[in-house]
Amino acid sequence: MSEGCKTIGVLTSGGDAPGMNAAVRAVVRTATAKGMEVKGIRRGYAGLLDEDIVDMPPVSVSDIIHRGGTILYTARCREMFQPEVQDHAAEICRKHGIEGLVIIGGDGSFRGAGALAERGINTIGVPGTIDLDIACTDYTIGFDTAINTAMEAIDKIRDTSTSHERVSIVEVMGRQAGYIAMWCAIANGAEDMLLPEMYDHDEQALIDRIIEKRRKGKKHHIIINAEGIGHSVSMAARIEAATGIETRATILGHMQRGGTPTCKDRVYASIMGAKAVELLQEGKSKRIVAYRGGAFVDYDIQEALHMQKSLPEDYIRISKSLIR
Amino acid sequence: MSEGCKTIGVLTSGGDAPGMNAAVRAVVRTATAKGMEVKGIRRGYAGLLDEDIVDMPPVSVSDIIHRGGTILYTARCREMFQPEVQDHAAEICRKHGIEGLVIIGGDGSFRGAGALAERGINTIGVPGTIDLDIACTDYTIGFDTAINTAMEAIDKIRDTSTSHERVSIVEVMGRQAGYIAMWCAIANGAEDMLLPEMYDHDEQALIDRIIEKRRKGKKHHIIINAEGIGHSVSMAARIEAATGIETRATILGHMQRGGTPTCKDRVYASIMGAKAVELLQEGKSKRIVAYRGGAFVDYDIQEALHMQKSLPEDYIRISKSLIR
Amino acid sequence: MSEGCKTIGVLTSGGDAPGMNAAVRAVVRTATAKGMEVKGIRRGYAGLLDEDIVDMPPVSVSDIIHRGGTILYTARCREMFQPEVQDHAAEICRKHGIEGLVIIGGDGSFRGAGALAERGINTIGVPGTIDLDIACTDYTIGFDTAINTAMEAIDKIRDTSTSHERVSIVEVMGRQAGYIAMWCAIANGAEDMLLPEMYDHDEQALIDRIIEKRRKGKKHHIIINAEGIGHSVSMAARIEAATGIETRATILGHMQRGGTPTCKDRVYASIMGAKAVELLQEGKSKRIVAYRGGAFVDYDIQEALHMQKSLPEDYIRISKSLIR
Amino acid sequence: MSEGCKTIGVLTSGGDAPGMNAAVRAVVRTATAKGMEVKGIRRGYAGLLDEDIVDMPPVSVSDIIHRGGTILYTARCREMFQPEVQDHAAEICRKHGIEGLVIIGGDGSFRGAGALAERGINTIGVPGTIDLDIACTDYTIGFDTAINTAMEAIDKIRDTSTSHERVSIVEVMGRQAGYIAMWCAIANGAEDMLLPEMYDHDEQALIDRIIEKRRKGKKHHIIINAEGIGHSVSMAARIEAATGIETRATILGHMQRGGTPTCKDRVYASIMGAKAVELLQEGKSKRIVAYRGGAFVDYDIQEALHMQKSLPEDYIRISKSLIR
Repeated sequence: MSEGCKTIGVLTSGGDAPGMNAAVRAVVRTATAKGMEVKGIRRGYAGLLDEDIVDMPPVSVSDIIHRGGTILYTARCREMFQPEVQDHAAEICRKHGIEGLVIIGGDGSFRGAGALAERGINTIGVPGTIDLDIACTDYTIGFDTAINTAMEAIDKIRDTSTSHERVSIVEVMGRQAGYIAMWCAIANGAEDMLLPEMYDHDEQALIDRIIEKRRKGKKHHIIINAEGIGHSVSMAARIEAATGIETRATILGHMQRGGTPTCKDRVYASIMGAKAVELLQEGKSKRIVAYRGGAFVDYDIQEALHMQKSLPEDYIRISKSLIR
Repeated sequence: MSEGCKTIGVLTSGGDAPGMNAAVRAVVRTATAKGMEVKGIRRGYAGLLDEDIVDMPPVSVSDIIHRGGTILYTARCREMFQPEVQDHAAEICRKHGIEGLVIIGGDGSFRGAGALAERGINTIGVPGTIDLDIACTDYTIGFDTAINTAMEAIDKIRDTSTSHERVSIVEVMGRQAGYIAMWCAIANGAEDMLLPEMYDHDEQALIDRIIEKRRKGKKHHIIINAEGIGHSVSMAARIEAATGIETRATILGHMQRGGTPTCKDRVYASIMGAKAVELLQEGKSKRIVAYRGGAFVDYDIQEALHMQKSLPEDYIRISKSLIR
Repeated sequence: MSEGCKTIGVLTSGGDAPGMNAAVRAVVRTATAKGMEVKGIRRGYAGLLDEDIVDMPPVSVSDIIHRGGTILYTARCREMFQPEVQDHAAEICRKHGIEGLVIIGGDGSFRGAGALAERGINTIGVPGTIDLDIACTDYTIGFDTAINTAMEAIDKIRDTSTSHERVSIVEVMGRQAGYIAMWCAIANGAEDMLLPEMYDHDEQALIDRIIEKRRKGKKHHIIINAEGIGHSVSMAARIEAATGIETRATILGHMQRGGTPTCKDRVYASIMGAKAVELLQEGKSKRIVAYRGGAFVDYDIQEALHMQKSLPEDYIRISKSLIR
Repeated sequence: MSEGCKTIGVLTSGGDAPGMNAAVRAVVRTATAKGMEVKGIRRGYAGLLDEDIVDMPPVSVSDIIHRGGTILYTARCREMFQPEVQDHAAEICRKHGIEGLVIIGGDGSFRGAGALAERGINTIGVPGTIDLDIACTDYTIGFDTAINTAMEAIDKIRDTSTSHERVSIVEVMGRQAGYIAMWCAIANGAEDMLLPEMYDHDEQALIDRIIEKRRKGKKHHIIINAEGIGHSVSMAARIEAATGIETRATILGHMQRGGTPTCKDRVYASIMGAKAVELLQEGKSKRIVAYRGGAFVDYDIQEALHMQKSLPEDYIRISKSLIR
């Protein structure tokens, strides 16, 4: 433990995601078991700059593994992109004795982590976002809960859509990325999915498919639309006008960010939180914990921020015979 | 069984509601046990007029008690308010040997039931609507499931609202009636509720309450808004502008109509469906099955349609110290 | 408020039930709004005797309405049946300035409440038990959550029971009373129910029904058995031996006592907690808050303890054609 | 498509698992899209031997993706291990024109698949078991649903365990393998886990840990015990006798096999079902579809049956500071 940290901080940043509490708990428990002390920084980088910092003994994380949200609160913090603010943030860490810092968040948060690492604070990023849009990892904290939340809501919408023989557009989260939409489209047996990565803007073709399926006797037509495409309400009005079939839009919204985490989110978030502490103990810095190729690994932050990822081929090919 | 019916029909009408299938199943099972035959009329009165009528042996209702929606489909049918259409509908019933008819739906559907009764078809209404806005009864099929669906969604929104220290407006169903909104406001420990029955249109007072509570340290502010008031998105924009606190609106929408019914909805819907058949067997007509004063009772349809009901005093008084 | 209490206590006693926290929260919030102070007594009467008493400002009940269990802990306390222990308990109340006491629990707990009332402490009972076995009330805190928990588990058991064409015995809670068993039997579309109130001990008749239904093509046979009858495992073995059909027993057990409360349990528990404080404010004592005939009412404790209740006629008659 | 099959069969075998219906649906939909016909074989190999075979047009798999259990029913079939029975089974396939066969099940079922492949029927196995105990794959259909079902039940048990300050032993499925137990122990924040792979039989050490934690103020002590170790009820009695702390056992049982599948189980099962058809189309036989190293792959059946797998190192190391 010679090179390791004695006192570490932990913060959650960006949009919250179910499982963040499990990660925070794992950071505290693992660090404590290794003889480190943990400080909780509230409201992400904004709270760091405000020195909104509290001690986190083991009891502070009792009874939180199953809770949605983040007990540390979170915020977006644009200032943190400015070099002089980054200097200041590093100083605050030093003032509070924080030698290592675990940052749970998305790509924006990791840029701050990179900046702090360059300023001498050992930082480890843990991917937390329901959108799955972090290139270096096949798993991000909260995605599994979000897809189940959305899927269960869509199952309910499907019941009533069938009873009324309606077309339903359901808009799920995912501004840049269609992962949630694609998973739900497969899982809910949807008739159509609109993903930002492969949207053809051909609304007429969509309308034609609806008319054709109705002719074949389909009692409902569920369209999963990603937030990145949006406009679900006006799209519904146009479809209803063109087809004569009652069409309703639902925007699932923020409920997708909350809720008690699924088993996978609790377990993976726990392992990632623990891994982050192990890396700090080994004296590592500027790394992101990731899950890739079926294993927990870690990458250099800069390297990770330059990776690309796209919707898996398999899923797209296979969904063609399943979603229709 | 001398005055009773030998063949009865069953239909679901108006907006669908979880538990309608349990009621349909109880109609079929109870009627079969009493030696009657059952015909299912699909898509409400619209289907009756189209003679979309199927035999319902006991096996047709196997494995449906737990399913949302209605296996008989449903529709709204404006034509059914016209006397000559009502004449025709009664004739179709006679043509198919339907002596008695169980109509599961809301007030609009019961008006049709009254008209058919006057034309010699024995009709019994069963209250099915998630909105609880049928005056003669303290219970309507689907309300219990709808409030639990909404409550669970709001629990999730509350998680993320707290993490981000946001104001959240959640719009729940209820065009004329604030029952869903009031129950959720109590159950979710909301800070404010806006009900059509008692809306003061004083948005400034609402804004003042938000600012005051934030000053006192409240991390979230959940406002439950009933559909009958609506305008949640623009209201959120105005609140954010006035308070400077991030404010988000979610319109829960049609998911509130679906989903597997709760235990109460399955049990009460089953009892009401069975009661409807018992009434037909006794030769009764033009009655609505209701739950009132803690017991299952029945009322004359016309009488029932003229009853009034309002939000219970108790709830309103008590919610004053609980919702704040 | 002249006759009312200035400081009140609240405790939960006997088996815990989902919704107890909502009741505790309503006691604290309502009392605070009326200018009273609240003291929480932990671990029921046992904690009272140990003077395990804490102040409960409004913040102590933040964020608990949706939590299962009871933040005040609970215990059974046999000593409290002894008159000299009751004297001592009343003295402890006086020592801590507790003029009024809200007791959330079952019949056993209410006997203690009656004894304290005779010793000058104003006591109000609130019915909290998942078993619904309190005679004066049609509702007890936790029953609605328990039946939904059991029902959802049985829905899952039914899936696998059908896949394997098995007989399944599911034992639900209810030592003296078959309410949970009866509601689940109706809600899960069970084939048989065994209730302590009307158990005929005729296992051969049960076996004959299983064989007959299998002959008619039924793919599963679900038997809901109440804890008060028990012996599910040995019964399964005997049925398998007699019928040659694979038969499995599941004892649902303590999971039925936990979980986030349903909407009804949160709302009714909130109203009952608030009512209890209103009664104390009016100077009432030795009363139980109840829900009867569709309204929230209150009864004298002694009177309430002598009431009788039995399974509702309606349910039993109707279940005959539904459960089979 | 020259080497591919024109008519394929599909069966589910061994213990049922949530997601099997999604796999069956994907087989039917993908095959239909490729111009193949599908026959459903009911009750696994037992149904094949009985020629319990039905046509599966696309409509036969409508509205099943979200259902637990298997619409094809399942059974264990010991006879299928005998070479002459395998000869007969292959003949029945040929008689019904079944050139390719998708077998959804566990290792036992794959041995039958291997035997049929040697007899000229193209067979593809798809791993379906809640226990995750198939060596060649990191994912099996149903595991994700089972761990969430168990986790949610344990969350509820934990509520009441805390309220009563009890020790709770919860027995989860897993006769040979402790995967469900390990995942739940991490996800539920358990204090102890007993896994068949690493059970030390040192009950005294377990009792000592319970006593020590109680001394430190822990309000509950949850022990997750795998079915393969069992004896939860007698273990609870011994712990209660030794510690004086109330101790209760719950055996979760068959509810873990049912329920609507999670999003992951629906999506992965769909992909695996589709992959199986693609392999048959390519003329492949005697393969198992697997998920390994983060990708969907396939292995020779014999090879797969000889693979070994053990609990992942990471999980075990990390759980040491998390489960305690």
